[in-house]
Amino acid sequence: MTKRALISVYDKTGVVELAQKLSQMGWEIVSSSGTAKTLASNGVAVVEVADLTGYPHILGGRVKTLHPSVAGGILARRELPSDMEDLEKHKIQAIDMVVCTLYPFEETVRSGASLDDLIEKIDIGGVTLLRASAKNYRHVTVITDVEDYGAVLEELASDGDVSLETRQALALKAFALTSRYDGTIHSGLSSELGISEEKEPPIRMPLNLEQAQPLRYGENPHQAAGVYSLPLSDLPWEQLAGKPLSYNNLLDLDGAMRGMALMQQETGAVVLKHTTPCGMAQGSSLSAAYKKALECDPLSAYGGVIGLTRTVDLETAQEIGSHFTEIVTAPDFQAEALEHLREKRPSLRMIKWNGGRLSPWQITSTWGGILIQEDKPAPLPTEGSGEWIGQPRPDLWDDLVLAWKAAYLSKSNAIAVVKDGATVGIGMGFCSRLFAVDFGTAQAGEKAKGAVMASDAFFPFSDGLERAAQAGIAAVIQPGGSVKDDEVKTKALELGIPMFLSHWRTFRH
Amino acid sequence: MTKRALISVYDKTGVVELAQKLSQMGWEIVSSSGTAKTLASNGVAVVEVADLTGYPHILGGRVKTLHPSVAGGILARRELPSDMEDLEKHKIQAIDMVVCTLYPFEETVRSGASLDDLIEKIDIGGVTLLRASAKNYRHVTVITDVEDYGAVLEELASDGDVSLETRQALALKAFALTSRYDGTIHSGLSSELGISEEKEPPIRMPLNLEQAQPLRYGENPHQAAGVYSLPLSDLPWEQLAGKPLSYNNLLDLDGAMRGMALMQQETGAVVLKHTTPCGMAQGSSLSAAYKKALECDPLSAYGGVIGLTRTVDLETAQEIGSHFTEIVTAPDFQAEALEHLREKRPSLRMIKWNGGRLSPWQITSTWGGILIQEDKPAPLPTEGSGEWIGQPRPDLWDDLVLAWKAAYLSKSNAIAVVKDGATVGIGMGFCSRLFAVDFGTAQAGEKAKGAVMASDAFFPFSDGLERAAQAGIAAVIQPGGSVKDDEVKTKALELGIPMFLSHWRTFRH
Repeated sequence: MTKRALISVYDKTGVVELAQKLSQMGWEIVSSSGTAKTLASNGVAVVEVADLTGYPHILGGRVKTLHPSVAGGILARRELPSDMEDLEKHKIQAIDMVVCTLYPFEETVRSGASLDDLIEKIDIGGVTLLRASAKNYRHVTVITDVEDYGAVLEELASDGDVSLETRQALALKAFALTSRYDGTIHSGLSSELGISEEKEPPIRMPLNLEQAQPLRYGENPHQAAGVYSLPLSDLPWEQLAGKPLSYNNLLDLDGAMRGMALMQQETGAVVLKHTTPCGMAQGSSLSAAYKKALECDPLSAYGGVIGLTRTVDLETAQEIGSHFTEIVTAPDFQAEALEHLREKRPSLRMIKWNGGRLSPWQITSTWGGILIQEDKPAPLPTEGSGEWIGQPRPDLWDDLVLAWKAAYLSKSNAIAVVKDGATVGIGMGFCSRLFAVDFGTAQAGEKAKGAVMASDAFFPFSDGLERAAQAGIAAVIQPGGSVKDDEVKTKALELGIPMFLSHWRTFRH
Repeated sequence: MTKRALISVYDKTGVVELAQKLSQMGWEIVSSSGTAKTLASNGVAVVEVADLTGYPHILGGRVKTLHPSVAGGILARRELPSDMEDLEKHKIQAIDMVVCTLYPFEETVRSGASLDDLIEKIDIGGVTLLRASAKNYRHVTVITDVEDYGAVLEELASDGDVSLETRQALALKAFALTSRYDGTIHSGLSSELGISEEKEPPIRMPLNLEQAQPLRYGENPHQAAGVYSLPLSDLPWEQLAGKPLSYNNLLDLDGAMRGMALMQQETGAVVLKHTTPCGMAQGSSLSAAYKKALECDPLSAYGGVIGLTRTVDLETAQEIGSHFTEIVTAPDFQAEALEHLREKRPSLRMIKWNGGRLSPWQITSTWGGILIQEDKPAPLPTEGSGEWIGQPRPDLWDDLVLAWKAAYLSKSNAIAVVKDGATVGIGMGFCSRLFAVDFGTAQAGEKAKGAVMASDAFFPFSDGLERAAQAGIAAVIQPGGSVKDDEVKTKALELGIPMFLSHWRTFRH
């Protein structure tokens, strides 16, 4: 019996050769509209879909292949006598291959197309062809991707047939595609209409991830990994120089970007290691800010990640170039800064960050379930939004805010000690807040005298304040909210440490 | 003009009332097969789809609604004269509402249905109805969910029409559904066929998440959040008692489950705080293991999370009940243990973990991109799989392996100090490995003498070993791999500290 391929492609690449080769192998080619024209004008004999169905295209092409002759030709179970009798009775010809590449809906959305245009581009017939042929993969080969033409033709040429294994794999590929396609329509229409049918947090979250860059491996060499983007989104950064980014580099970059966002109003710098800052500062110039951030813990900064909130100039680049650093990220790099670092540190990864991020939702998969939370930074503290316990210290306010930012950016439990626009001690990642106080003040050493301290969550007891006082801390910012707040406030007054309650907890794990 | 609703539902809940009310408002009801029978037997006047199309159902019902009369009736742009002329010319009746609930494919997969059955259950016609009517939402109302019947009927009753706003929201809901539906088919067929078309890591990853439990908030109170599962998966735990779990509880549970998996061969206990352990031990009984784990850092353990590798007995429950703990998780709880804790600590969350997890992939969304890595634990070290530097200490091997587990479970950079089957010091989350060594040995104090130490990654310099020696550490396990390994090995020999190189880095961030 003659084999029959239905071809309806948006992307015409390679389609003439495919159809020619199929024809040469005795296949009948069924097609319509643009594809049919392309094939016919290249000398391929084509049966029009309308001739197959006996039904014209209607609604300006909205309905072409949605017909029982097409659906039946694809969906018939060849091993079932009753199905084959139905085909015969209704003069339906079996279709053994469907080649269909969809109009790239994502590009339409990205191009800023009108709502009318978006709606018109939603493919109904093509998706039905793909889904029907994928369902009946035991008898039908479904091709969704130009890249699969070659392998299928080779199999046909060598074996006279497409193997079941290949048909299975192509069917799975088709369902992955249609799932993503409808997810993209959902995202595109939602954003165009400015609405969402979902409550917050959404009950259903279709996340059709696509690999944006492969990665050599994950957190450890034995784990395969990749970095992914969402439909309608690009990665919000561009690599200008250096070695490829690793998985752990991207974890650190997340911290750098969050730090840059927290300091975007200032000329600021953050140095990170193992996803948590070992220095954070603001300054009168970018190089000054960087130097101050570095001073906090130069030992840990070795091989670290630097985030800068302003365009990198030559002076800053020279400073950076004199240390070993894995990554530097900034909104931009002056040409001479780029050139200097490319020459001095060819491995250094330079990342231009456009200030964006992929999604308003943060996804973290745990063994116990996939956690989704709003990725919404807490507002910066203002003196009006919180409450002073003891004598206010407006003269220390800028340092208090910087300490708040550093504690926020650090892994919980976190304590940041700041003096003169720079962290001088950061205690982070501890199981106990007291340990964080001890580590942060010890790291600050003599500099703790007259410095300020921030805590990312409330002090559960008053002992943290006592240690702070022993170290010479001049003022504290913390959210408050402990059941023992009264005790902690009394202790602050007793110790003469002004304490600002911000009312916002800023855990980061 | 008569309004027309096409109704084809798997879930018959409420469909009679819906159709009756639509009929009473003058709507014509079009339906087929089971739905038509249900409606007709309840006295609703129904037009059979086959009468609308003039085409019989073929292929045993595989092709019913896939006909231009249906597709055209749904897709016609009512404002376009040419579309309306097409309808007239081909005697197609406009369809203004599509009500279609799909056969629950996920349940079919979960029920362990055969491949034949799975394939048969893949809905082609219903999905096409949903997608076509969602595309043409400007004119057509698409209902995919029994829960939406009421609101639509109310709008019709009060306004005589369904508002554009509602139609938009319903259309988005339909595309979210079809996206998830095809993602579920993809997952279900992949697992049934035992194949995947994707390379590792997959290029495309359709993740159709569905909220399994709402959460009060996220890491901080200003962040909305939920816990999600994947199609075909259940959360791998069951809550037996206590207050609802929070986002941060679930983060901690992840650590507890990973810790339990690392110790599953032993009678073991881990106590966590802020996602990282503050004690880990194994013992001759569960209560002994728990007490030893608790001793490492009782201060931090306050309000912590306990993971236990064996069924909780009364003795262990009594120990647990004498401290304030947020969560205890274990493979099971004896009835009297459950009863004791329910009474003594009614807020304590008791979680029965079935040993599973949701996915072989770990997803972490960062501002720079969504990271996916294999969630594949490194193999436990064996003396044959690594290399001793200096005199092997098989007598300390069990402690070395426990230290390796504790360092693995701790946030990087991590150092674990273990003596007699229990951690006595854990330095974790530091920017510098040296700080981790200092903290871990300081926490161990006198117990460091004769204890063993594990590092989750190589010692970059020999100074870490020097500090370990000063503290009295008797043996070390670390992966090796530093460019300065020779220096570090020489130092180990010089200090007389036997050092086992495991060759596996175990970062956890």
